[in-house]
Amino acid sequence: MERDESVLRDVNGRFYRALSELDMEGMAAVWMHGPRVRCIHPGWEVLTGWSAVQASWQAIFDNTEAHEVEPRLVEVGVSGDLGWVSCIERITSRGRVGFTVGTNLYRRTPTGWRMVLHHASGVPFEEDGAPEALIH
Amino acid sequence: MERDESVLRDVNGRFYRALSELDMEGMAAVWMHGPRVRCIHPGWEVLTGWSAVQASWQAIFDNTEAHEVEPRLVEVGVSGDLGWVSCIERITSRGRVGFTVGTNLYRRTPTGWRMVLHHASGVPFEEDGAPEALIH
Repeated sequence: MERDESVLRDVNGRFYRALSELDMEGMAAVWMHGPRVRCIHPGWEVLTGWSAVQASWQAIFDNTEAHEVEPRLVEVGVSGDLGWVSCIERITSRGRVGFTVGTNLYRRTPTGWRMVLHHASGVPFEEDGAPEALIH
Repeated sequence: MERDESVLRDVNGRFYRALSELDMEGMAAVWMHGPRVRCIHPGWEVLTGWSAVQASWQAIFDNTEAHEVEPRLVEVGVSGDLGWVSCIERITSRGRVGFTVGTNLYRRTPTGWRMVLHHASGVPFEEDGAPEALIH
C-alpha cells in the first residue's frame, strides 16, 4: 500500500511536470483516454471525455508562454484500483506566484495509473506566498 | 460493485440533504471525524481536519436562511474501500439558481461510508439554468 502511494505520487508529479512543460505528449500519457473522464479547470465548465479534455490542455498550452506548477502539501490515498491526490498547486508565471487547489483521481490499469478526474479551483491569495498558509 | 455504487449514491444524497436542510447533525453523520479530512468550499482556503471542517459548516449554516442544493449529473465510482462522486451542484436560494461543481471522496468504514474530502468550486452561470449545459 505504501508502495502504491509512492508510485501514485510519482505519477501525480508527472502530471504537474507535463503541465509545467506545456508537454501535450506527457499530458496525454498521464490521462485515461475514455469517454467518462472529467476535468474542471478553475472557473471553467466541466469537461467530459478525453477528446474535450485533450482539446482544453492544448488550448491552455497554446496560450501559455511559460509557467511552473508545483504540487505542494500533497496528500495521497489508494484503495484497490483507485487513487486520489489532494494538493495545493503553486503556480509561478511571469515572476508572480499564485495558488490553486487540485483534487486528482487515478485508476490503476494494466499499464499503470491513469488520471480520470482533475478538479482545480482558486484559493485566496496569500501575500507571503507560502502554501502552508492556505491550509487551516 | 453496482450495489456499492448505489449505496454511495445514497450517502452522497444524504450529504446534500444535510446541506440543504442546514442540518449539522446530518452533516456530522456523513463525514469521517479525523485529522486528515479536507474540505474546499468555493473560493475558501483548504480546511483540514474534522474540527475545522465542522466549524465551517456551522458558520455556513448560521449564515444561510434557506437554500436547496441538489446533486445533478452524478458520476459514482468505487474500488475497494474508496469511493468518489463527481456532480453538478444546483443551488436554489431566494428564488435564484446557481451552480457549483463538486468532487467528493468517501471511505468505507465498519459503520458505513464516510466523506473524507469535499471540493466544490464555481462554474460559469448559464442563463437557462440547465445543468446539462455545464458539461461539455
